[in-house]
Amino acid sequence: MSEISRGLENVFIKATSLTYIDGEKGILRYGGYNIEDLVRNCSFEEVIHLMLYGDLPNSEQLKKVKERINESYNVPPPVIRIMEELPHDADAIAMMETAFSALASYYNYPWKKGENKERALEIIAKASTIVANVYRLKEGQKPEIPEPSESYAKSFLRATFSREPSEEEVDAMNAALILYTDHEVPASTTAALVTSSTLSDMYSCIVSALAALKGPLHGGAAEAAFSQFLEIKDPSNVEEWFNENVIKEKKRLMGFGHRVYKTYDPRAKLFKRYAEELARTPESKKILDIAERLEDIGIKNFGEKKIYPNTDFYSGIVFYSIGFPVYMFTSLFALSRVLGWLAHIIEYVEDQHRLIRPRALYVGPIKRDFIPLSSRN
Amino acid sequence: MSEISRGLENVFIKATSLTYIDGEKGILRYGGYNIEDLVRNCSFEEVIHLMLYGDLPNSEQLKKVKERINESYNVPPPVIRIMEELPHDADAIAMMETAFSALASYYNYPWKKGENKERALEIIAKASTIVANVYRLKEGQKPEIPEPSESYAKSFLRATFSREPSEEEVDAMNAALILYTDHEVPASTTAALVTSSTLSDMYSCIVSALAALKGPLHGGAAEAAFSQFLEIKDPSNVEEWFNENVIKEKKRLMGFGHRVYKTYDPRAKLFKRYAEELARTPESKKILDIAERLEDIGIKNFGEKKIYPNTDFYSGIVFYSIGFPVYMFTSLFALSRVLGWLAHIIEYVEDQHRLIRPRALYVGPIKRDFIPLSSRN
Repeated sequence: MSEISRGLENVFIKATSLTYIDGEKGILRYGGYNIEDLVRNCSFEEVIHLMLYGDLPNSEQLKKVKERINESYNVPPPVIRIMEELPHDADAIAMMETAFSALASYYNYPWKKGENKERALEIIAKASTIVANVYRLKEGQKPEIPEPSESYAKSFLRATFSREPSEEEVDAMNAALILYTDHEVPASTTAALVTSSTLSDMYSCIVSALAALKGPLHGGAAEAAFSQFLEIKDPSNVEEWFNENVIKEKKRLMGFGHRVYKTYDPRAKLFKRYAEELARTPESKKILDIAERLEDIGIKNFGEKKIYPNTDFYSGIVFYSIGFPVYMFTSLFALSRVLGWLAHIIEYVEDQHRLIRPRALYVGPIKRDFIPLSSRN
Repeated sequence: MSEISRGLENVFIKATSLTYIDGEKGILRYGGYNIEDLVRNCSFEEVIHLMLYGDLPNSEQLKKVKERINESYNVPPPVIRIMEELPHDADAIAMMETAFSALASYYNYPWKKGENKERALEIIAKASTIVANVYRLKEGQKPEIPEPSESYAKSFLRATFSREPSEEEVDAMNAALILYTDHEVPASTTAALVTSSTLSDMYSCIVSALAALKGPLHGGAAEAAFSQFLEIKDPSNVEEWFNENVIKEKKRLMGFGHRVYKTYDPRAKLFKRYAEELARTPESKKILDIAERLEDIGIKNFGEKKIYPNTDFYSGIVFYSIGFPVYMFTSLFALSRVLGWLAHIIEYVEDQHRLIRPRALYVGPIKRDFIPLSSRN
């Protein structure tokens, strides 16, 4: 069965100018710019312009991006009511799927060069509204629509928590949005591409991606990594926990290792720095301490095999320190990745569109004679 | 750029024992059984057993399938309320996406061999409930849950139209359900596979597939073919319409041609027979007359290029004659294809699972120096 491209490994589904990864050297670039430079110096809105329009914006271009986003936070009231109908214990990504599917009922635009990127900005704004309200509704709070502020990150945090976020929280949220923006074509992006290839509407492409992200092998890693820290409970337990679970029981160390990176994931480094800056309460300091000790033991044991912390190892501590519960981590990933999904499908549909239609290799019985129901054993 | 597998053409994404297609000879088989035999002799429930369990059922097995379906038509009341919140002019597939996403909030089962197929039967039942209510709500009628009857097709038609369907209508609906069940791995099935590969829940896999089906290049062909007949208005206009639109304006003749079939699509033949049986009113007789004349002219002009009517050419007339408006055609396709999607993802996850993660070929700038906002032109 060598004819089958299992997992589509090493199959190139498209060309891209969005994300460059050098897994050996631990390099990640968006549009040619190092992720470190972008995280340190840019707002998420600048990265939005970079991903959609191919370069970092000047002040005038940035202003336009911000204006369009600020105009677009509103969603039709039934979309919020639909979210309210869902059970409070619903999976956060399933809630996002439902809300984006509902939005597809309202914004059923055909693809049109010159309009697609404007549409994308609207979708990015509405994603903020949806994710803020996933949190609010699950917490039993009344819905809230984000309002324009200095930044996308700030508007999102304000709407989510109904409070003024600190400058550090806004910086960390901004960094997280940039760090999770894109990573080439994992399963969720592939699902979005397949859906875009039928010229389905952009909201439905996002729905497809969310459905794929929901799987535990894709979007859930930050939650899984953080849950380990909670399970370990105290820094003094790290070594014992590691020996018991990872060495003896052969359980996977979550937040470690990556198909592409054979060295320290550049995103993990940056998330770690924000985690160190933000962890102020005794509880979050303790969790950070657990994580850092676990990292040391992990690298001591797996570093030779080129297995290092990945982006999800420290991101949870950042989100937790800002005030998000664990169940929100994957939807925060999604909030950021909406931009990557949109940038990839626009690149695909505008420049290299083709209906995606692979084959399946038939291995069943070639021909069987029909037997009527009454004669079947 | 020869490295890129455009549209994943001729890339084998999986092995399958479900559907065998010989496009040259016009042969379609499910599990080795000719589609003609299945449509003429089987209930959709028998085909459900064939697709999920690998063979046609005996009476005892068939009874079990029916029982599980009959027990599972109910959906949580908020799912219906969510559908009621959507605008009446919402796209039927967007409504299905929303309803299935909402269902994912309730039935978030992990994959488990021995349980997956039972789950699939429940989903097939709930799909009937969802599609019946897409129609009812768009028509401003009160929601209805299908009730057990002699057959899945009959229960669906009864709930949809609140009337006793004729035997011929039930037979035609049953045939349509079988004819649209599966066709290897088009974009919608591929989206479902990508989503299943992250071990996302089965409802979300269906959501992904629906999002892809929604695109005009995939699910909309039956609507587009039928709309042509309405546009032509009268059989006497066929030749003029064809010359004007297809010959002169080079518009595509919808419902004609297929990437795989290079001869008459075996499904089109069967749909044509049911269309001829069902078209009784003067209006549907006229539409059938238009279709048959258009087929003749189409084959006269394109037959040499091996372009013939495909499954979507006559299916709309069957649906229309049963009483469905044009906007429902794609969701009726989806109702049937839910079985194919489920059978493919179960085959994939249980027997050949691997996370789907293709590559993108980076063609952008390798490295650009960062310029701060204030220095950008």
